Amino acid sequence: MSDLSVPRPEVTRLSVPPRLLLGPGPSLADPRILQAMSTPLLGHLDPQFLEIMDRTQSMLRYAFQTRNQITIPVSGTGTAAMETAVANMVEPGDTVLVCVSGYFGLRIVDMARRYGGQVEVISRPWGQVFSPEEVKTALERRPAKVVAIVHAETSTGACQPVDEIARIVHDQGGLLIVDAVTSLAGVPLFVDAWELDVCYSGAQKCLSCPPGISPITLNGRALAKLEGRQTQVTNWYLDLSSVSKYWGKERTYHHTAPISMVYAIYEALQIVLEEGLEARWRRHRTNAELLWAGLQEMGWELHVPLEYRLPSLTTVRVPPGVDEAVLRQRLLREYNIEISGGLGELKGKVLRIGLMGFSSRPENVLLLLSALKKICG
Amino acid sequence: MSDLSVPRPEVTRLSVPPRLLLGPGPSLADPRILQAMSTPLLGHLDPQFLEIMDRTQSMLRYAFQTRNQITIPVSGTGTAAMETAVANMVEPGDTVLVCVSGYFGLRIVDMARRYGGQVEVISRPWGQVFSPEEVKTALERRPAKVVAIVHAETSTGACQPVDEIARIVHDQGGLLIVDAVTSLAGVPLFVDAWELDVCYSGAQKCLSCPPGISPITLNGRALAKLEGRQTQVTNWYLDLSSVSKYWGKERTYHHTAPISMVYAIYEALQIVLEEGLEARWRRHRTNAELLWAGLQEMGWELHVPLEYRLPSLTTVRVPPGVDEAVLRQRLLREYNIEISGGLGELKGKVLRIGLMGFSSRPENVLLLLSALKKICG
Repeated sequence: MSDLSVPRPEVTRLSVPPRLLLGPGPSLADPRILQAMSTPLLGHLDPQFLEIMDRTQSMLRYAFQTRNQITIPVSGTGTAAMETAVANMVEPGDTVLVCVSGYFGLRIVDMARRYGGQVEVISRPWGQVFSPEEVKTALERRPAKVVAIVHAETSTGACQPVDEIARIVHDQGGLLIVDAVTSLAGVPLFVDAWELDVCYSGAQKCLSCPPGISPITLNGRALAKLEGRQTQVTNWYLDLSSVSKYWGKERTYHHTAPISMVYAIYEALQIVLEEGLEARWRRHRTNAELLWAGLQEMGWELHVPLEYRLPSLTTVRVPPGVDEAVLRQRLLREYNIEISGGLGELKGKVLRIGLMGFSSRPENVLLLLSALKKICG
Repeated sequence: MSDLSVPRPEVTRLSVPPRLLLGPGPSLADPRILQAMSTPLLGHLDPQFLEIMDRTQSMLRYAFQTRNQITIPVSGTGTAAMETAVANMVEPGDTVLVCVSGYFGLRIVDMARRYGGQVEVISRPWGQVFSPEEVKTALERRPAKVVAIVHAETSTGACQPVDEIARIVHDQGGLLIVDAVTSLAGVPLFVDAWELDVCYSGAQKCLSCPPGISPITLNGRALAKLEGRQTQVTNWYLDLSSVSKYWGKERTYHHTAPISMVYAIYEALQIVLEEGLEARWRRHRTNAELLWAGLQEMGWELHVPLEYRLPSLTTVRVPPGVDEAVLRQRLLREYNIEISGGLGELKGKVLRIGLMGFSSRPENVLLLLSALKKICG
């Protein structure tokens, strides 16, 4: 039994081309964050690591603008944070209203159904946003215990106002889950002031940290829902009733934390602190405006009206006569620049350009515009 | 609404003490792996990244000794791989037999119940292993569609032979899930030769990669079970019917892969290839024997009989008169050495010493023995 029946494959050493990441994520990781990941490991119950966890939580509270006790990074990518929100808040039989105006709204619908939610959907064309009245009408038709909406739709580039919607959801006795994957630390977001009950994000967008760890925060209303559940959370790994005991005072072992990714988000949050949230929001806005002006000068049409346009992710309509797949391939092959195509309803119709975190720099905008002109003539 | 109500916290720069990790995991990451994580990011659909994924899979097949097509790293820590196995293989109402002789067996029981399994449990005292006959008798009493067993119990230090058990499980028409978290790349493991249907592991044990990514492999029998499911997998993030399409030919976007962690496991597997599996198993064995001899010379008693003793994780009984918590604290504070205490049944009764991956070195054994002598007199 000691013979190896599967031989050693021939595999080359790890080596990557120097890509400029201007797609919907991952964004470029700040070199300081890449360096932080080289920090030697600590055990996940080492007192020094527990301190790092506490400080990470306090920085996350600043980024989310919240005082919520449960404000932690989930041990997975943004989708895992989304699933954490849904799995913990939706009990079998719960009425759930999901507002869908893009790909990630659809993903929430799929998840909410898997967790036994009685899901109602309201829709807007991709790239538009919901008015508070639309949500109100839907809830009058059928009240919902849980409402979910995407603040910054990575698939469309629209920024959905959520504060009034939160009030409407609360007035009818439900709680609101908000997807802030593409807004946290790049676009104004006020979890406490807006009274968002559950809000989650990813690391690989405006935080400019590699994917693999994802922040989430729950307020008292959400915590009460979690504590009052009649049924156990189906998902073991993402069960906040246990995960929060590891991040809280109890320090009960649940699963081994992704140590290096915690270092990464720690460094990412330090950078946010140093820059300051407001300056960071301004930077994202200024560089996005530079991009928008440049694209419009080329005669290209922006997909989302200025009023709801997301600074972190721009969708621009594919100009007539341009093969968007070929354009993206040439950008990648000739200039090492990654941008992305449309998803779902917008497939083939738009290009998606991300200016997030470390990627949001004027020099990147100039280079991209210049390369687009070169290729499109 | 533009005022920040949560002020910037004062947070110190990331800085960690130089720990020698000789606990149950994470083990020390090889410096080459820490360096690999500093590699700049690629997009998760970049053709260059897709190649890295393919090569990662082929290296994982070597490590698992399997030709299984579905051999991938899951985007989470070892527990996420365990949940991937359970969530995908257990359908509501399925009869499941879990063999429990330690903490991680209990965790499988909890998960299998959450996914609707009709769970039967057989138990052995922690530190012992099951005979094939015990499993056979249990299955004659009540056949099971899914049987789960832990190959290398991190909580007890016992190595459970699984090849005969696999035959028994197949003879009665079920499939076998094997937890190899603490054995992959450190202890002989032959997924194909032993006919294990699902086998998963972690990165932070004998692979010496930081936690956050976890290998799993499924054979044809497991794949047939997945494809023949009557119900959707409740877990979205870990649903292999979609995840495997991203890692397979289709390349369908599912969730953003944890790019830096893929780099890390890539480098970890390269190191396994360079050393060779058999040499690596020998090294783990040799260093463990050095530890065992040293502990026995001190008059300390090893908890697991030699026949079933795991080289990667040693449980040694706490000698009379020794306060194990104080001992561990002193090791950490005075010598920067991490070892661990017992879990569950073995809490307070044993110490757990890991010699895994990069941590499995004779100099580490000498240092630990010397520090133990210094502290215990």
